[in-house]
Amino acid sequence: MGLEIICTGDEVLTGKIVNTNYSYISQKLEDVGLAVRWGTTVGDDRESLLRAFQLAAARADAVIVNGGLGPTVDDLSQEIAARAAGVELVLHEAWLTRMEEFFRRRSRTMPPNNRKQAMLPATAELIDNPIGTACGFALDIGRARFFFTPGVPRELRRMLEEQVIPRLLALSGLQAAIHLKRFHSYGLGESHVDSLLAGLEALVPDGSVKLGFRAHYPQLETKLTVRGADMDDVRRKLDPLAREVRKRLGNFIVAEDEETLEGIVLDALASHRASLSIVETFTGGQIAARLAHLPGAEAVFRRGVVARDLGEIRAAVGLDEATPTAEAVAGVARQRTGATHALAVLIDLDAGADRIDLGGTIHLAIATAQGVATRRSRILGGREWVRLGAVELALDCLRRHLLGLPVVERIDFEKT
Amino acid sequence: MGLEIICTGDEVLTGKIVNTNYSYISQKLEDVGLAVRWGTTVGDDRESLLRAFQLAAARADAVIVNGGLGPTVDDLSQEIAARAAGVELVLHEAWLTRMEEFFRRRSRTMPPNNRKQAMLPATAELIDNPIGTACGFALDIGRARFFFTPGVPRELRRMLEEQVIPRLLALSGLQAAIHLKRFHSYGLGESHVDSLLAGLEALVPDGSVKLGFRAHYPQLETKLTVRGADMDDVRRKLDPLAREVRKRLGNFIVAEDEETLEGIVLDALASHRASLSIVETFTGGQIAARLAHLPGAEAVFRRGVVARDLGEIRAAVGLDEATPTAEAVAGVARQRTGATHALAVLIDLDAGADRIDLGGTIHLAIATAQGVATRRSRILGGREWVRLGAVELALDCLRRHLLGLPVVERIDFEKT
Repeated sequence: MGLEIICTGDEVLTGKIVNTNYSYISQKLEDVGLAVRWGTTVGDDRESLLRAFQLAAARADAVIVNGGLGPTVDDLSQEIAARAAGVELVLHEAWLTRMEEFFRRRSRTMPPNNRKQAMLPATAELIDNPIGTACGFALDIGRARFFFTPGVPRELRRMLEEQVIPRLLALSGLQAAIHLKRFHSYGLGESHVDSLLAGLEALVPDGSVKLGFRAHYPQLETKLTVRGADMDDVRRKLDPLAREVRKRLGNFIVAEDEETLEGIVLDALASHRASLSIVETFTGGQIAARLAHLPGAEAVFRRGVVARDLGEIRAAVGLDEATPTAEAVAGVARQRTGATHALAVLIDLDAGADRIDLGGTIHLAIATAQGVATRRSRILGGREWVRLGAVELALDCLRRHLLGLPVVERIDFEKT
Repeated sequence: MGLEIICTGDEVLTGKIVNTNYSYISQKLEDVGLAVRWGTTVGDDRESLLRAFQLAAARADAVIVNGGLGPTVDDLSQEIAARAAGVELVLHEAWLTRMEEFFRRRSRTMPPNNRKQAMLPATAELIDNPIGTACGFALDIGRARFFFTPGVPRELRRMLEEQVIPRLLALSGLQAAIHLKRFHSYGLGESHVDSLLAGLEALVPDGSVKLGFRAHYPQLETKLTVRGADMDDVRRKLDPLAREVRKRLGNFIVAEDEETLEGIVLDALASHRASLSIVETFTGGQIAARLAHLPGAEAVFRRGVVARDLGEIRAAVGLDEATPTAEAVAGVARQRTGATHALAVLIDLDAGADRIDLGGTIHLAIATAQGVATRRSRILGGREWVRLGAVELALDCLRRHLLGLPVVERIDFEKT
């Protein structure tokens, strides 16, 4: 099925805002097995919109249009959709009533210009927006089915997932029951994970499984899309595949689906009724900043200490040794703050100006009442790369320690 | 001048990466007074590329193409450009030599497939890439001048600014001497700044000044583009305008051009030969994380302490009071760590689940040998909004204190 996306709006056209709606829509469609073939960006301008709609109508089977459904004069999507389809705009009474209720529930009167949002092309099918005043709609222009969606990200997301994708899957003739399973890993590069998972798709020989990746250093996301006759069918195919992914990627999977590494660490600490103190240097507070603000962290996060100077670290935790080791720092930080767990991350950063081969040596220790676990790692790639890598390594070692996994396991990013 | 952008590549088309190159190019062109009229995204696919080039060639005066100049088989820009222009691909000997040198300087032999990067359409004008192996080029297709640029962001940026924009300005007939002046402010909303700067463009009556904004909460960027016959002319117009902006926005300007708020704070501390300790709660280490990792911070940043619990803060800084105030915490943190300056940011976050009207009350104090300055602020808008706002408020109060400006000055984001 030939599928296109048209993004409208001066702010997107001029780059004033980065077009994350485009990548969101495109990824969501990829995830359900629908490939986007063409993307167009135009401003709030009648001539460009009409031309964009006409070109897509002649090329595609289905088109998603984003933006231009608001109440102001520069919101033109309904008007130009009607013109491109050669039909009139008519008032959609049911949506007008919904909007009036929307304002009434908020103890406000609907401003007159919102009425415009209930004017739809005569042949349009209304698409519900349960959380805003901009309804979506679908209609045929030329040979293509067009789906109009709001520019507000949370309204777009809800409408796309609940309303538009099921319609697209029905149009495409693809099996409509579908599930996207995601694995978040740390420590393995994309090509390494790709080779570890070689042959995975073929375990389900009917072609209904698709494997994909999304790298955002330091983490990698592995995506498994499974299609079936119904959700039971999908589940039947997915369960053994998910087990296989967990087996092949092993300890490197840090979280699945909506989970995060820091959320897993926080949950593990909470379930152990544990508490955590952190001592960090060049990471500058960023390890603490991943955890300490989360809901629930107030009961778990004990204390964070940041200093760039080892002497200062020594003074802060109350340690006598001239050159304190990460082990010593973690041990004494645990005792002094009364936490069950203490993490110390001391970094020797290479001297000199930032450069692509600037590295850092990360000395990491986790102290508990039972003893101290340590990890040493060297990462190259410039200040930013070392810092981001060290934050992730620290959180991952904490996860491994809390879950009883080996804290020391070689990762692709480190040099020895 | 009708101007278009074509972004190529499967990763951009499928949303696997967010298309920040598009917004970068578009903003840069806006900044020099060139408005983009149409954006197209296509994959690494011969048919789509050819169609995209042909459509743009019929519509536009100038087109910037991004991506597809690499050495691999899915990099197709040169091939399709030649086909669209109806010319042959020929080897550009000078660029081949440059590439061979590029590899020789890195003690490597050029792989054979890089030779492809020196194959250019016969009528192309080479555009230099001083930092990579993908040269750019320009050629006419249909009625439009096409400019081909590499997808690697730093190579794109350098080529666009140094090579492509001057050529576009020459094509457009606009005055080519141009300067973009940027002011970063904190505490005033976009519409407020817009009204404060009303009439500014008209101070230079020849229309050569353009005012624009870019909001990224909590900061706002005000952009002033000035055009002239030569750089002296530009400077003559800009200087009084910049003074006027500084006068009207006053203490709310936190930095200009490439400067950052945290960089200004660090420089001010360094020039006072001062040192800084920070105590924070719900911000979770993020105030420290903005400063502590910067080059030079190792000499200025003394110590950061993070805790979610006031009792823990008390224990960490060694304070006896049962309910410590920000003043008391900052005072004792300064004494205990021997820093010249101490910042304490204690936040009372509203109870309950996150919601759009969840707020936080920020108690902020800056202690020096001369005394303690305080600031209290209430921000509404959910956990994330409160946290981001508090980090910025803290850094801005520090800036104000260090520069001798009033620490207390009402901002648009706070409720009282």
